Amino acid sequence: MRIQHLLFSVVLVLGIFSINLHGEDGYRLWLRYDKIEKDETREKYSNQINQIYIDGESLILNTVAKELVRGISGLLDRNIPLGKKPVSTPGIIVGVLGQSAIIDHAIPKAEAEKLGPEGFAIFKTKRTGENHIIIAAKDEKGVLYGAFHLLRLLQSGVEIEALQVLENPKVKLRLLNHWDNLDGTVERGYAGFSIWNWHQLPQYVDRRYVDYARANASIGINGAAVTNVNANALVFRPDYLKKAAALADVFRAYGVKLYLTARFSAPIEAGGLETADPLDPAVQDWWKNKVNEIYELIPDFGGFLVKANSEGQPGPQQYGRNHADGANMLADALAPHGGIVMWRAFVYSNEEPEDRAKQAYNEFVPLDGQFRENVLIQVKNGPIDFQPREAIHPMFGAMPKTPLMMEFQITKEYLGQGTHLVGLSNMYEEVLQTDTYARGEGSTVAKVIDGSLDGHALSGMAGVSNIGTARNWTGNLFGQADWYAFGRLAWNPYLSSDEIFKEWAKMTFSHHPLAVKTIADMLGSSHETCVRYMTPLGLHHIMGPGHHYGPGPWVSDMPRADWTSVYYHRADKEGLGFDRTASGSDALSQYFPDFRHQFENIDECPLPFLLWFHHVPWNYKLSTGNSLWKELCTQYQQGVIEVGQLKGKWKSIEAFIDQERFDHVRMHLEIQEREAQWWRNACLSYFQQFSNMEIPASIPQPEHGVEYYKTLIYPYAPGIRPRW
Amino acid sequence: MRIQHLLFSVVLVLGIFSINLHGEDGYRLWLRYDKIEKDETREKYSNQINQIYIDGESLILNTVAKELVRGISGLLDRNIPLGKKPVSTPGIIVGVLGQSAIIDHAIPKAEAEKLGPEGFAIFKTKRTGENHIIIAAKDEKGVLYGAFHLLRLLQSGVEIEALQVLENPKVKLRLLNHWDNLDGTVERGYAGFSIWNWHQLPQYVDRRYVDYARANASIGINGAAVTNVNANALVFRPDYLKKAAALADVFRAYGVKLYLTARFSAPIEAGGLETADPLDPAVQDWWKNKVNEIYELIPDFGGFLVKANSEGQPGPQQYGRNHADGANMLADALAPHGGIVMWRAFVYSNEEPEDRAKQAYNEFVPLDGQFRENVLIQVKNGPIDFQPREAIHPMFGAMPKTPLMMEFQITKEYLGQGTHLVGLSNMYEEVLQTDTYARGEGSTVAKVIDGSLDGHALSGMAGVSNIGTARNWTGNLFGQADWYAFGRLAWNPYLSSDEIFKEWAKMTFSHHPLAVKTIADMLGSSHETCVRYMTPLGLHHIMGPGHHYGPGPWVSDMPRADWTSVYYHRADKEGLGFDRTASGSDALSQYFPDFRHQFENIDECPLPFLLWFHHVPWNYKLSTGNSLWKELCTQYQQGVIEVGQLKGKWKSIEAFIDQERFDHVRMHLEIQEREAQWWRNACLSYFQQFSNMEIPASIPQPEHGVEYYKTLIYPYAPGIRPRW
Repeated sequence: MRIQHLLFSVVLVLGIFSINLHGEDGYRLWLRYDKIEKDETREKYSNQINQIYIDGESLILNTVAKELVRGISGLLDRNIPLGKKPVSTPGIIVGVLGQSAIIDHAIPKAEAEKLGPEGFAIFKTKRTGENHIIIAAKDEKGVLYGAFHLLRLLQSGVEIEALQVLENPKVKLRLLNHWDNLDGTVERGYAGFSIWNWHQLPQYVDRRYVDYARANASIGINGAAVTNVNANALVFRPDYLKKAAALADVFRAYGVKLYLTARFSAPIEAGGLETADPLDPAVQDWWKNKVNEIYELIPDFGGFLVKANSEGQPGPQQYGRNHADGANMLADALAPHGGIVMWRAFVYSNEEPEDRAKQAYNEFVPLDGQFRENVLIQVKNGPIDFQPREAIHPMFGAMPKTPLMMEFQITKEYLGQGTHLVGLSNMYEEVLQTDTYARGEGSTVAKVIDGSLDGHALSGMAGVSNIGTARNWTGNLFGQADWYAFGRLAWNPYLSSDEIFKEWAKMTFSHHPLAVKTIADMLGSSHETCVRYMTPLGLHHIMGPGHHYGPGPWVSDMPRADWTSVYYHRADKEGLGFDRTASGSDALSQYFPDFRHQFENIDECPLPFLLWFHHVPWNYKLSTGNSLWKELCTQYQQGVIEVGQLKGKWKSIEAFIDQERFDHVRMHLEIQEREAQWWRNACLSYFQQFSNMEIPASIPQPEHGVEYYKTLIYPYAPGIRPRW
Repeated sequence: MRIQHLLFSVVLVLGIFSINLHGEDGYRLWLRYDKIEKDETREKYSNQINQIYIDGESLILNTVAKELVRGISGLLDRNIPLGKKPVSTPGIIVGVLGQSAIIDHAIPKAEAEKLGPEGFAIFKTKRTGENHIIIAAKDEKGVLYGAFHLLRLLQSGVEIEALQVLENPKVKLRLLNHWDNLDGTVERGYAGFSIWNWHQLPQYVDRRYVDYARANASIGINGAAVTNVNANALVFRPDYLKKAAALADVFRAYGVKLYLTARFSAPIEAGGLETADPLDPAVQDWWKNKVNEIYELIPDFGGFLVKANSEGQPGPQQYGRNHADGANMLADALAPHGGIVMWRAFVYSNEEPEDRAKQAYNEFVPLDGQFRENVLIQVKNGPIDFQPREAIHPMFGAMPKTPLMMEFQITKEYLGQGTHLVGLSNMYEEVLQTDTYARGEGSTVAKVIDGSLDGHALSGMAGVSNIGTARNWTGNLFGQADWYAFGRLAWNPYLSSDEIFKEWAKMTFSHHPLAVKTIADMLGSSHETCVRYMTPLGLHHIMGPGHHYGPGPWVSDMPRADWTSVYYHRADKEGLGFDRTASGSDALSQYFPDFRHQFENIDECPLPFLLWFHHVPWNYKLSTGNSLWKELCTQYQQGVIEVGQLKGKWKSIEAFIDQERFDHVRMHLEIQEREAQWWRNACLSYFQQFSNMEIPASIPQPEHGVEYYKTLIYPYAPGIRPRW
């Protein structure tokens, strides 16, 4: 007993030291694997896990071995060895069906039949007199995801006596999109610069690449498009392809496929041709040869992500061809190797249309059925551009013959960028759970995306990454929760945000119930808070120009009208909002009738989308009992108040958080509060010019007139290409 | 015994774990404070240090307390408490002369009199029956440097029974210059991007700022100019000054003063004036008011660093004034607050002169005696621009009435940038020990710089920082040694590089004699190696254009002749090299006669500077017995061979280095070897066109003709402003 006591003292002292010396810098993300605090839980686990046995050997199985040993040894605070054979001490046995006799024997047939690609089963079984934990799958990637799932359960303190889990991913392609330029900058990146050190690749392979791949694997992400959609043909130069191959070599061990963005004019820029016309045989040959060259270096290359004929990017329309012509040409080059094309629907023509919200639908829906089988159309959640809140994109459900892939934003271009605490999972969930009514009630966006609505073999979800060189990966520590939630929802779009937040809180910060509940509350409420202080009641696209930092409802002088703010909010003496009903742009007509009917009547339209679909008089009485103007003022103020509450909530759990991470979040919340006030003051003082109504006395009056807010300029706000 | 054995096992296991979990990412630099491995040494120290007592309280003394507790507790692997009073157990007693009766009593008068500003004494003394270690100084900064000195001794395993140290810094201003832009890019930065997050300052204060300041304090650096010399007037906007003040607040606790770069045209850009003429009263007033505004926010602001009338930067010459007029105007604004001006001598006119090497001297020497007392002229070590090796700058010793400050490069613009292992300390040492013969023999550059040659009160040394967002700070791990060495030499320019390298190796990697010796060998030989494979025999400025990455001896088509390579190497059918004797540009005439005489005769000129000063026929027989051409080939090849030897040396100490850092260096050495071969092949195949002589059979022939090497382009090589 005395020895044990002494031992624990030493452990304690060293534990404290190790924290002091290294600091809690957030680098480890949710994969912390620190000793489980609760003795009872740790001892229970310890009794059930004495060794790990991997029945088989391969690149990914070796990863599984390494991760399980590292993770479980850390959690149990003792060395859990990798067994050379399955012995009679309780432990973990891992293997692939059909490759492992132990697994084949252990798994009940009915269970085995339920397993799909990349799925896994985890269960307890008796073998040579002892209970073991089995991780079984149909393929290696399934085993990998099973291993990380088990680690997550152990990290979360879940009871494992009678473990019985079977999961298959609902979505096939689960990708991060990195808008990373080859010079190291990141478009719309707020976490430093690109983690890809193209200059030193392929010889210098940064340890971060491994840790990046691990983090992705741990949440089921199986692909990464590593270059910006505003693409650079230089990546097709042979030395750059070798650099990409070095990344792919690292990713492979974690089941992550590498994808590249294809600049449509690459045959001209990288190939020296005079055209990039997709129907030109020389162009087709160039792509075929280039794709063959890529697959020689990267046998499991995933395929291309393409932004074409949008915001100045080249595309097939330059040659009188359409999106299907362009996508199919690339798809034909990739098909022999099993590669795919993700063709983005974020397009709007260079001629200014009456309503930008309608364009993608108009361009793509007529092409339904014309795309090759290995093409997905990648659609942003809403028809404008990652606004704090958007109505769902009208294309969801409107192209039954084509797999539509979701493009969510994980980075926070319009949602507070690098500093605001805004849990995006609620926004994802809101979109995924929205009913399109495409095939009657229950035709949710989730069902469009997972392919179940129209029976597609291919399905996908992409998230625009928020990862950069910041030591904690995401700059803002709570941004880790967005990366985490994206992965979890891509695996299963029917998960609840609240559950995801609680998992993340436990793994990242503390198991204490108050800390878990508070963190989940903060994340859960924060998206609505952000909408309130930025763009309440369906307002959208009223931010600062270019960098999109801060409020800019006055922005009117831009190269094209649909880049301005006034185009979207349409404030005038009468009222506020964009009439998208039949009396206006009629964008509503692109939706299915049962969806449309919810929004077309100004009196019934849900308040969160009121100004998205209607131009509403300032003194119009809303369901809240307030006039539009008063409700607008109230919403802005409520947003500011709620940021104050976020600060209070964080302060209330200070005792459970280490100093370094506590301070990090605290400082960012200070910035968020200041900027929330800035949004409120700038927007209300601007809109007041039109409403000509008083800001209610209960709400702090703006400190300055609108002219002051207009003078604030921030030439070096991050996330845009540096200007020289 | 059994208990002890068990305890050690636990410690061992946990120690291994802690390494596994956190990885050895290099973030801790030389301030590692891991448990001293050797039991005997640790126990000896442990017997002598049971507590730390700080006699006094202040911002910097609190830092001292924190650093000593953290460092010594780590090294001794037990909690060393901060005492509330000096008790009779052996320990450390710290205080400032005149503020601490204990210190006043403990220090012998003769010793106290030797102490200067920022100097310190460390010695053992008996008090209330026990031996204590005393750290005494005349001021708080001295105590801080003393504390870090003691920690360094403990980290290095030095015997402390009879400690007796007294040191005063030889140089007053010891600064880092950060060429960091406000958008986060770093000009000539190869370690990621800027660590200053201007966007989130002043509210978000990154932990890195503290660790940056600590690292500087630990090697005696007492100032940092945080903005690029190619300056941006935006930094004078009130919100940016608040951001700068937040950095200064962090630095202050570590004795580091903040400096800014002043764009000469700021009165126009930031002040709305129509001129920046230094003799215009409105301009003078603008600067005075701006300086007053700065000092209200930053009471200990250091002053301005200025690049004027150079490479397109604005300056006094635009108004028909000279450098003294410009510098004195700023100096007058700063003088009431105790601020200084560091005016850079790196200037060359927009008209192309016959020899760029002569210009700074021509512009500045006539102004000697015209500068205010609070102005220093900051001079690069050589007259061109941080080449792998340069002759010393002719200005050293030539302006006896003006304090000249050294500007060394710590970043490696022309020395392998982010990947090559090149210990710069040898280069610093070579320059500092060079005799200018300004006041007869022994008038070394070091004596010019420390002010002793001409009796200046002000003295300074600046290093262009190699720090960026890379987790290990410097990108290349061995780049940490350059930062370290710069700091040590700025404190004492008479230290030997070999001693510095050994200190660094012990603190950073291992105490094992073989590891220490090998690392010091690698660093010590590597500068000469780099010179050999890049610019042997006095060649200079033959690198790729713009980014300066890789070889480019063929560069001839640039906006101005003195940006080309052919301007500097002057290769022709007859020979190679720049004649700077009386028969050529006569740049040699700017040096003092006894210096000049060493170089003016082609037969006596030391080989390392041969082509710097002479145009030498290809078949000219050198002192080595080789023709110039054969010697050139031999030198390039020798450089390549030596990089191979560096690889071998590193491999030979693998057992003493953790895996992560071993691999990091190994991968970079692979890049270095490839690039050394590239330099050799490209330069020899280029120069061979002129020499028309065979490359000796013993040397590998270039794999390609010179035309191939010319086609290699690297648009995104780091360290330059991104191009769009």
